[in-house]
Amino acid sequence: MTRINDHYLKLKASYLFADIGKRIKAFQEANPTAKLIRLGIGDVTQPLAPAIVKAMHEAVDDMARAETFKGYGPDAGYDFLVEKIVAHDYGARGVKIATDEIVVSDGTKQDSGNIQEIFAIDSVVALTDPVYPVYVDSNVMAGRTGEVDDSGRYAGLVYLKCTADNGFAAPLPDRHADLVYLCYPNNPTGAVLTRAAMQKWVDWARAEHAVILFDAAYEGYIRDAEIPHSIYEIEGARECAIEFRSYSKAAGFTGVRCAYTVVPKELRGRDAKGQPVSLNALWLRRMTTKYNAAPYIVQKAAAAAYTDEGRKQTRAQIDFYMENARIIREGLEAMGLTVYGGRNAPHIWGKTPPGLGSWDFFDKLLNEAHVVSTPGAGFGPAGEGYLRLTGFGSRANTEEAVERIRTKLAR
Amino acid sequence: MTRINDHYLKLKASYLFADIGKRIKAFQEANPTAKLIRLGIGDVTQPLAPAIVKAMHEAVDDMARAETFKGYGPDAGYDFLVEKIVAHDYGARGVKIATDEIVVSDGTKQDSGNIQEIFAIDSVVALTDPVYPVYVDSNVMAGRTGEVDDSGRYAGLVYLKCTADNGFAAPLPDRHADLVYLCYPNNPTGAVLTRAAMQKWVDWARAEHAVILFDAAYEGYIRDAEIPHSIYEIEGARECAIEFRSYSKAAGFTGVRCAYTVVPKELRGRDAKGQPVSLNALWLRRMTTKYNAAPYIVQKAAAAAYTDEGRKQTRAQIDFYMENARIIREGLEAMGLTVYGGRNAPHIWGKTPPGLGSWDFFDKLLNEAHVVSTPGAGFGPAGEGYLRLTGFGSRANTEEAVERIRTKLAR
Repeated sequence: MTRINDHYLKLKASYLFADIGKRIKAFQEANPTAKLIRLGIGDVTQPLAPAIVKAMHEAVDDMARAETFKGYGPDAGYDFLVEKIVAHDYGARGVKIATDEIVVSDGTKQDSGNIQEIFAIDSVVALTDPVYPVYVDSNVMAGRTGEVDDSGRYAGLVYLKCTADNGFAAPLPDRHADLVYLCYPNNPTGAVLTRAAMQKWVDWARAEHAVILFDAAYEGYIRDAEIPHSIYEIEGARECAIEFRSYSKAAGFTGVRCAYTVVPKELRGRDAKGQPVSLNALWLRRMTTKYNAAPYIVQKAAAAAYTDEGRKQTRAQIDFYMENARIIREGLEAMGLTVYGGRNAPHIWGKTPPGLGSWDFFDKLLNEAHVVSTPGAGFGPAGEGYLRLTGFGSRANTEEAVERIRTKLAR
Repeated sequence: MTRINDHYLKLKASYLFADIGKRIKAFQEANPTAKLIRLGIGDVTQPLAPAIVKAMHEAVDDMARAETFKGYGPDAGYDFLVEKIVAHDYGARGVKIATDEIVVSDGTKQDSGNIQEIFAIDSVVALTDPVYPVYVDSNVMAGRTGEVDDSGRYAGLVYLKCTADNGFAAPLPDRHADLVYLCYPNNPTGAVLTRAAMQKWVDWARAEHAVILFDAAYEGYIRDAEIPHSIYEIEGARECAIEFRSYSKAAGFTGVRCAYTVVPKELRGRDAKGQPVSLNALWLRRMTTKYNAAPYIVQKAAAAAYTDEGRKQTRAQIDFYMENARIIREGLEAMGLTVYGGRNAPHIWGKTPPGLGSWDFFDKLLNEAHVVSTPGAGFGPAGEGYLRLTGFGSRANTEEAVERIRTKLAR
């Protein structure tokens, strides 16, 4: 029989959110009338902004007429979108990014899962613990790790423990690493990196000739004016950092699917002979060979998020979710729980009550309060003892969830 | 510096269509007023079918209301689409495929490029020559080949030469292979496989314990009632074949992006210990970890292609393109060229005039007739001496292109 990629067998039983999905399904089958409130998976609930809806209808009409019909799009994205990205996401913050440093795609999950392909299989990978599981799993599947141990750690990966003690700000690795995944504002902890902390990372990466894979999917949620929105706001980052951006949480696109990745032209890796190779060129090659531009309609939708109306409307959505986050944070604090995040990110990272593990507390909230959360342990061993809740629900559901948790925990 | 994936450096300079794009750009800069006719890249030109446009508008409206808004979709695709696939693409032809054997995605380019990930790195890969470049390049990038030789062949790959002598029907490999890519109706030659030829392949794969990766992206163009549309119409195929289907050419979705892959539950690979492993489970794991369901709007659009109206309208588009193919085929034949394809596929595979290589003829058509084609050599060494033209243009452009070629060739 054809041999499979054995690295897949190293993966823990299933992708975290698939696992949660199964528990929810089992609960619903046992409790068909229960009204579940989902504050687990970070999925938005507000309808698309009117400016975006309008742009999508127009784009559909373009597809309905031969003169304006669009087939295969430009490999790296339409100019009408890429130029807006350059101007608004970067130019407006004093950062210079060229249009040919951007490749538009259908998701940061994909981009952050695929980026590892352009690097050598023996690259040393560092990542935070807790962490977004895709960074780990994509490297396990590619064969950059050994087996997983009882604590859930894979041999060969460098784990950067993020705890309350260090404010969930990733500490520098205690050994060399070639690739470091950083996500700030952080999923799942809701922590941010200060400018000084980011500078420390960039300085480290330059000294180590390492590449930072910076996931800025939640940058739209930053409230504190001192926190950088892009790693390229940091001196030297163009030589050592790739940045991922997503419209999923910034514009409610979890079901629309659009994102982009920035690979500056200064970025170099080296080949087996020690010669420098442009990572920008490698990523473009990867994408032109195994991807095909995001749908025209989707790119039109993303572009509409940058219009005056679109920006006002998507900002109002973010404000709405951040108010939910405040309600959850203050509600849990009022119950005596210790809570992090929720100030520059939609995620609330709460400590579980004494004696309850992550999955215990997850099950308790599911079975008693009928509230879906995400167990912290699902994001890595250091997430044990925590639970993630998100501000992405409706206002009524968010308030009811907090009230239900309060009632159940009080018993 | 971080080490790159050196396998990328084995790739020929660029992805074929990017290469062609550069020549076109250079031509246009030198001839700004010339009116180019593009019959090269297989990109559709007819606007989306009215039934699909209607469904997309409705889906956009769903996204505009909180009650009907859709965030992350089901990992493997919405039931409303998957059930239609099962009923229409398979059930209607007497083939039983279960809903959980299908994963919906945003393109067969992606799926056929990604499928190799679930197999061992030392798998022996066989593919036709000429061939859709993605099959080759994705395996080169993964490290399943050695270097490329002067003829354009990569060490380690098993090439199945498809020529006029064998009717461009892939001959069985003369040695063991673990994975075989077959695309029928074929891109680029326009050839089809008879039922008997398919049965021979399935029997071979079962005997060799190999997996056939069957790309049926052009099945909608089959005219001959005797030609199977799916490899699963062949006895035993569920044990040895994965099938790719696309809406790009079937419903004009090159700019909409939707496809799906079928991995039957009977399909097994073996792990390092010789234990059987479900390929269906591995593919689902790959997709849930590194992909995120195709956009809701796109899946709604695909589902609309299965309504009575949608089927009638998309069939009319296919008829239109096939009439173009006939015009090209008969036009070239009238000029004394030898031409294949164009009867059960939108592709015309023409022999270049004596003394002209593929790229020579490509350049001649570009520079003299201002017609964009695809050089056969771009699809592999055995494509040298051929040129691909497609029936995807408008009627007027198709007719004018044939007339221009006639005029230029006659000189």
